Amino acid sequence: MLVYKAPIRDIRFILETLGYDDVTEIAAFEDFDLDTMMALVEQAGKFCTNEMLPANRIGDVEGVQFDPETKDVSTPTEFKALYNKFVESQMGGMSLTAEYGGGGAPHAAAIALSEMSTATNKSFTMCPGLGHGLVEALTHYGSDEQKENFLEKLITGVWTGTMCLTEPQCGTDLGLLTTKAVPEGDHYKLTGTKIWITWGEHDLAENIIHLVLARLPGAPEGIRGISAFIVPKINLDGSRNGIYCGGLEHKMGIHGSPTCVMNMEDATGYLVGEAHKGMRAMFVMMNFARLTVGVEGYALSEISYQTAVEYCKERRQGRSLNSERQEPDVKADCILKHPDVRRQLLNVRSTTEGMRALSLWVANLIDIGLQHEDTQIRQDADDLVGLLTPIVKSYCTERGFQNISDCMQAIGGSGYTVEWNIEQYLRDERIAMIYEGTNHIQALDLIGRKLPKDGGRLYKVFSKKVYRFIKENRETESVVEFIPKLESALNRLNEATMTLGMKGMSDPEEAASQASNYLNLFGITTLAYLWARMALAASEKSGKFYATKIKTARYFYSHILPETDSIYAIINAGKDNMMAFDEDEF
Amino acid sequence: MLVYKAPIRDIRFILETLGYDDVTEIAAFEDFDLDTMMALVEQAGKFCTNEMLPANRIGDVEGVQFDPETKDVSTPTEFKALYNKFVESQMGGMSLTAEYGGGGAPHAAAIALSEMSTATNKSFTMCPGLGHGLVEALTHYGSDEQKENFLEKLITGVWTGTMCLTEPQCGTDLGLLTTKAVPEGDHYKLTGTKIWITWGEHDLAENIIHLVLARLPGAPEGIRGISAFIVPKINLDGSRNGIYCGGLEHKMGIHGSPTCVMNMEDATGYLVGEAHKGMRAMFVMMNFARLTVGVEGYALSEISYQTAVEYCKERRQGRSLNSERQEPDVKADCILKHPDVRRQLLNVRSTTEGMRALSLWVANLIDIGLQHEDTQIRQDADDLVGLLTPIVKSYCTERGFQNISDCMQAIGGSGYTVEWNIEQYLRDERIAMIYEGTNHIQALDLIGRKLPKDGGRLYKVFSKKVYRFIKENRETESVVEFIPKLESALNRLNEATMTLGMKGMSDPEEAASQASNYLNLFGITTLAYLWARMALAASEKSGKFYATKIKTARYFYSHILPETDSIYAIINAGKDNMMAFDEDEF
Repeated sequence: MLVYKAPIRDIRFILETLGYDDVTEIAAFEDFDLDTMMALVEQAGKFCTNEMLPANRIGDVEGVQFDPETKDVSTPTEFKALYNKFVESQMGGMSLTAEYGGGGAPHAAAIALSEMSTATNKSFTMCPGLGHGLVEALTHYGSDEQKENFLEKLITGVWTGTMCLTEPQCGTDLGLLTTKAVPEGDHYKLTGTKIWITWGEHDLAENIIHLVLARLPGAPEGIRGISAFIVPKINLDGSRNGIYCGGLEHKMGIHGSPTCVMNMEDATGYLVGEAHKGMRAMFVMMNFARLTVGVEGYALSEISYQTAVEYCKERRQGRSLNSERQEPDVKADCILKHPDVRRQLLNVRSTTEGMRALSLWVANLIDIGLQHEDTQIRQDADDLVGLLTPIVKSYCTERGFQNISDCMQAIGGSGYTVEWNIEQYLRDERIAMIYEGTNHIQALDLIGRKLPKDGGRLYKVFSKKVYRFIKENRETESVVEFIPKLESALNRLNEATMTLGMKGMSDPEEAASQASNYLNLFGITTLAYLWARMALAASEKSGKFYATKIKTARYFYSHILPETDSIYAIINAGKDNMMAFDEDEF
Repeated sequence: MLVYKAPIRDIRFILETLGYDDVTEIAAFEDFDLDTMMALVEQAGKFCTNEMLPANRIGDVEGVQFDPETKDVSTPTEFKALYNKFVESQMGGMSLTAEYGGGGAPHAAAIALSEMSTATNKSFTMCPGLGHGLVEALTHYGSDEQKENFLEKLITGVWTGTMCLTEPQCGTDLGLLTTKAVPEGDHYKLTGTKIWITWGEHDLAENIIHLVLARLPGAPEGIRGISAFIVPKINLDGSRNGIYCGGLEHKMGIHGSPTCVMNMEDATGYLVGEAHKGMRAMFVMMNFARLTVGVEGYALSEISYQTAVEYCKERRQGRSLNSERQEPDVKADCILKHPDVRRQLLNVRSTTEGMRALSLWVANLIDIGLQHEDTQIRQDADDLVGLLTPIVKSYCTERGFQNISDCMQAIGGSGYTVEWNIEQYLRDERIAMIYEGTNHIQALDLIGRKLPKDGGRLYKVFSKKVYRFIKENRETESVVEFIPKLESALNRLNEATMTLGMKGMSDPEEAASQASNYLNLFGITTLAYLWARMALAASEKSGKFYATKIKTARYFYSHILPETDSIYAIINAGKDNMMAFDEDEF
């Protein structure tokens, strides 16, 4: 049973509530008022439901095949036709620059599309998704010639892109990488092996453009000696370049998405940006990618939630414990009447909608941070994007995994079979906690880079914003039930931030030991802030949708926000009891 | 990479610490002093590591096959040979009655075996495992003739057993079942369809004995009209009985274990116990089965932990944040030096060892409750078994799933591939939260049956026991760091128990809404009690093993026990915000 309805109404509500009006103030987006934007999103939603979803299972069942003779990778049946339709639809470049064939829409469009297409076919979505990051990197650091040669084909999806970072001896620690690039005329010859290359080889598009990290001769050790190169599969003169797939990984999920070993032998590459400054291009590429990986968590939560609700409305077992709710004339009530089923579903729903709000808010902030004409507004937005990106990536993927598991639990045995497809969503989602920088790496980015930056400015922008909301709404009747709880949550986050900051200065290991917990504390607190804002907005409207929003906010505050109690206690427990073990005691 | 070392040392320590001395006081176990017992366990551990583990992956990859023509189910390569060796080893009947060919050892032996064999080959283990429950049911309720006909062959593993409860329209709510049994001479003719029948059909043994729930003509509605029957695949006269496999489920995991639809058409069956009292036999069968399902959670945690530790000792990425820990002459340190990796691994280890302790303690209590000569000791033990069984089943399976996921996270991308096998453990474990009564059903059993029973006697036995330990050790230097925290935890559990009890009387829906959280609160508190006892025992010995135990106890108290803060807060939030939603608002 495949169940999916694009969450159009919710996306519209979130955009209305969380900063889209600031986006439309920007000259570049004057053609994208909310209605126009939502028309785009709606069209994308239809494509996802009608075209992507039906090809999802087959991608999982058939998987991808590697031919060791030809080094070719073949993709699941229907993916080729789907890819052609996707390119035709021009959805992939929706938020990319119009100068090179994109749609020029705000980033929120890309995030909304990313959610819906991941929900309906994650394996497939990863293919065009990677091109997005490459386009951003080239837009920032590519030469004019490189832009001319590559951007339009990447944006329109005629070609696809990859990110080639990891090597067998280095994943998290990129400083250890050894792929070599030797200059030859106006280009370079690259030799080395990359692993975990998503859609590194496939048969969907006529060319694949790899962004490869490598070392020039005599480059400094560590990450300060890494340069970035474009390495096309097919050279611009039509000849085959020396980059070949060496095999595929066999994974728990995303079976329709090839994860390739890529071998380069004297492959022709073009330097992107300055020598030894490859990490800069990579970070541009990764920032948006991290956001979209966070989206994966709630995208698959959403489709799992919808699936579970469908099941729980049909399935009859036992009687409601409240005699007034019992249905006469049947022997058993639908299980949606049972409080524990509701508990599971509402845990999922209240976090899923919260995560969607967080991520679309960040999408709006990206545009504001890049293009708003007010310097201060621009800087504040940019600060929030930097601060919140690791939180979106980690909190959403960790919670997403738990959510999908909860949806499986609500369904019971049927959820464990392929019949309701939730088991695929669970398998497909799990990698999101690992790739694009493991969740702990995000937490280290948050505490080690984002918090200390410019004397803690980023955090101050965030806490000031939340405090202002609290102050402004202390007497607002519709949210008075939330404000004191939000204030305690923020106070606690402030305390944890200060404690961690102090510890981090004297003992980085102490801070690192609780970074992951701290990130989750931050994530839940941010969701509480957004839920209060959404409850306020909903209280000003009438209709069932808005009434449900307020109920969901209440559920979040009573049943999710208290998760911070334990996290805070554990943060304060610190590192001693974990560092006390010798290595041979494990 | 398959990594496993049977946790013999830990099992011995737990038995020494948690009540095995009371078991050996029982006359029936006079031949089973600790050394004899551990020799059995050690031998079983070797079998699991050497024979079961090598056949584990192939079971997952090949799966089981159904032939719609013959209705036969064929099992993975090597399972047949493995099954023959398993029968030869006589391990399966280790703790079953010697009167019919079993080994007559205490239940702890079966639990230890269950852990090690599940860790090394869960799909395979489920086959002989189910026979165990059937033996218990027949021992209690079977007629002498039935015992003669079936027990020895089941105990020795010449035949295997199943439990046939679920039907398409009823899982949790067995009252809805419709399979019919019509009397015919000294037996019955059964007709109906059962689903989710684990190892319902296979080619490992010469006969399969099904315990089937069905209704006699004119039986009362609901569960008071259910009777239990033995339905053999091959009749005692050698003819084929009318029970056939109708197909297999396609599942996320346990691919080597057939999950069958079983169709009966006029199948010959024999009534077990009294008419309409089938649930009694089923409960006997299920009680031990629930315990062994709980074991699955920490069994697969343990093998995942060992796998992750092996990886983290070898894998080098980044430098230790503590310069004193950095290894000279290498560019990167092993990731076991990083605090977050330790955090993940110690979360897993401290709960895994705690769950093992819980479950072996309950195993000891089973024997004491059944056979100790002191009436009071016997009753107290029996009370604790009743109270703790749902906790073992639910807490261990839920935590187990989280633990395996944490181990995957410590490994990173490699953990998501088949290479380190953790992804199989994660898939194989997930069903344990669902089958044998979903985790929420266990929680309802706890709050709805076990707590109110005999005026709350079961809970009083538990809390008195923990309080006595607290009182006795208030001044004991070696555990003084744990006692106040244990006391607060117990006080809080007492409060939650009273609150839930009060609510349950006036509004069962209110109690049900927080039953699952309450069960977890109970589980963590019980583990805290057992960790304090283990720390005390370890403090009286010297050597690295014991020093590590105390460190692990400390970690549990500082980093796991605070999880109860949030659970307690959420319990108190109650049902209102979840019941406020209309069904069409989901």
